[in-house]
Amino acid sequence: MSVGIEAIEYYLPERFMTSGDLASNFGFDIQFVEEKIGVRRIYIAGENEKTSDMAVAAIKKLFEKRPDIKEKIEVIAVCTQTPDYQLPHTSALVQKKLGLGMDIACFDIGLGCSGFVYGLSVVKAFMEENKMEYGILVTAETYSKIIDEKDKNTKPLFSDAAAATLIGREPYLTPLKFTFGTNGNSYESLIVRSSESLFMDGRGIFEFVATVVPDDLKRCLEINSLKIGDIDYFVFHQASNFMLDTLSKKIGVAGDHRVLKCLDRFGNTVSSSIPIALDTIKDISGDGGLKILISGFGVGLSWASTILSTLRRT
Amino acid sequence: MSVGIEAIEYYLPERFMTSGDLASNFGFDIQFVEEKIGVRRIYIAGENEKTSDMAVAAIKKLFEKRPDIKEKIEVIAVCTQTPDYQLPHTSALVQKKLGLGMDIACFDIGLGCSGFVYGLSVVKAFMEENKMEYGILVTAETYSKIIDEKDKNTKPLFSDAAAATLIGREPYLTPLKFTFGTNGNSYESLIVRSSESLFMDGRGIFEFVATVVPDDLKRCLEINSLKIGDIDYFVFHQASNFMLDTLSKKIGVAGDHRVLKCLDRFGNTVSSSIPIALDTIKDISGDGGLKILISGFGVGLSWASTILSTLRRT
Repeated sequence: MSVGIEAIEYYLPERFMTSGDLASNFGFDIQFVEEKIGVRRIYIAGENEKTSDMAVAAIKKLFEKRPDIKEKIEVIAVCTQTPDYQLPHTSALVQKKLGLGMDIACFDIGLGCSGFVYGLSVVKAFMEENKMEYGILVTAETYSKIIDEKDKNTKPLFSDAAAATLIGREPYLTPLKFTFGTNGNSYESLIVRSSESLFMDGRGIFEFVATVVPDDLKRCLEINSLKIGDIDYFVFHQASNFMLDTLSKKIGVAGDHRVLKCLDRFGNTVSSSIPIALDTIKDISGDGGLKILISGFGVGLSWASTILSTLRRT
Repeated sequence: MSVGIEAIEYYLPERFMTSGDLASNFGFDIQFVEEKIGVRRIYIAGENEKTSDMAVAAIKKLFEKRPDIKEKIEVIAVCTQTPDYQLPHTSALVQKKLGLGMDIACFDIGLGCSGFVYGLSVVKAFMEENKMEYGILVTAETYSKIIDEKDKNTKPLFSDAAAATLIGREPYLTPLKFTFGTNGNSYESLIVRSSESLFMDGRGIFEFVATVVPDDLKRCLEINSLKIGDIDYFVFHQASNFMLDTLSKKIGVAGDHRVLKCLDRFGNTVSSSIPIALDTIKDISGDGGLKILISGFGVGLSWASTILSTLRRT
């Protein structure tokens, strides 16, 4: 059996702000926050809550659901750009805090909103190459710690979260072929310069989502010999409502119920937005045979897409 | 043909300090610097020279040697813990500075001295999974920018460098099975806390190299059905002369000519020390049939080992 996703769990911090808070703080109309940005709530890590703490909380939920696997984890990859320390890597702290044995591969992946899709391919491949049974891909960011609270471009959008994806040999979701892309020329579109806060060039990101990403989605469908009509769910990175609508229009699925939106409940959780969205699909463990197009895009600029296929249970 | 190493090139900055400089700056005996630490020269990136610049310089050397591959690179992974920016990832800047097409996967790997061995497995696996022909693993660190110039534990040891390893389907070095390990309990042994410089607990690192790493080397030999006597070269992370001697003693190869040392010429270049050392082996492209044990260990704590096998050319 090919390696794929066996389970997903996520963690959200206790602290949050509502669309009402955001609207009043920034002098926005509440409709603008809830409809154009698309957010009703963003989550904010506690003052002493670090990326590794959120990663550990998400993994603990996995272990609660699957107590059999705790001793069998052979690799933990943490995808983050807000690590606890510049060094060591956050995945080593996760290994420590979970009390796991030393016989485990831990490494960090440095990517933003495309990180879940990239990471899925990286961890799957690493496990197959090294003949491992169980691994965990964690996506975890604490953007609240790098955001200027007065920045109306970023504060009402980004949300802290972690997702833990169990990867193993009895998957309910198996990735087909992947596409990957990079445009470093636009590296300044989303950036943290030394001792500065996160800067986002909303227009630059918008143009990217309106032009490059639709082409990538077409390419992903092509290499997997599938058409738009074959897809049961479109799970795009939950960038913002406006971005999701633009992207949906561009590929001809505007207003389509197949386009998943859960941004309102969670905010833009960076690399965790796709696994969290996947977890909201309720019929996914039903009859099987579903095709889910996932696509992550953002900081870098970077993008990656694949199709997840559920098994038809016969 | 299995995916492996086709070529290695490295880059060292122009600025350097000699053992004489280090001895006088820290009040050390020059013998201590040259024999116990084992360093005659450390390299220091220019004031405006960033990790991506050094990575690009190393890759350009690869492209000079192999002009055929520039347009064929499908993945660039940069292993670093001193990225240009907290975000975006340094590999996106490398893609931009090299003027490569957008149809390329770029991601960063967050690991220190074990990063080359981990990265080799990650990139090899990623390429096999995604059926890619050519990829580059870059290891690049500018520790000089996080080191307190007055710290006698770290300043006389660490050196800035980048190495670019071309990975492809006509390798001269093919990795056999890998071992990986992590001990996050000792995460404070080598750490950069917020707005502080690099801290190194020399004794903690020493104990790790004297106990955990020898066991890992034994395990690596075992899973590859090889014995110490079968190994033609031992290419350990060039931590310090003292560490290399300790490790060699522990596995019974003290003073053996098969234990490679090039620390004196380059300093401890973190994740680049193994690829740079590999590049110093001159008979490697000769008759083939060599077995090279490589092992990276350090910050995390983290370690990884494998055996590189050269093809017997018949």
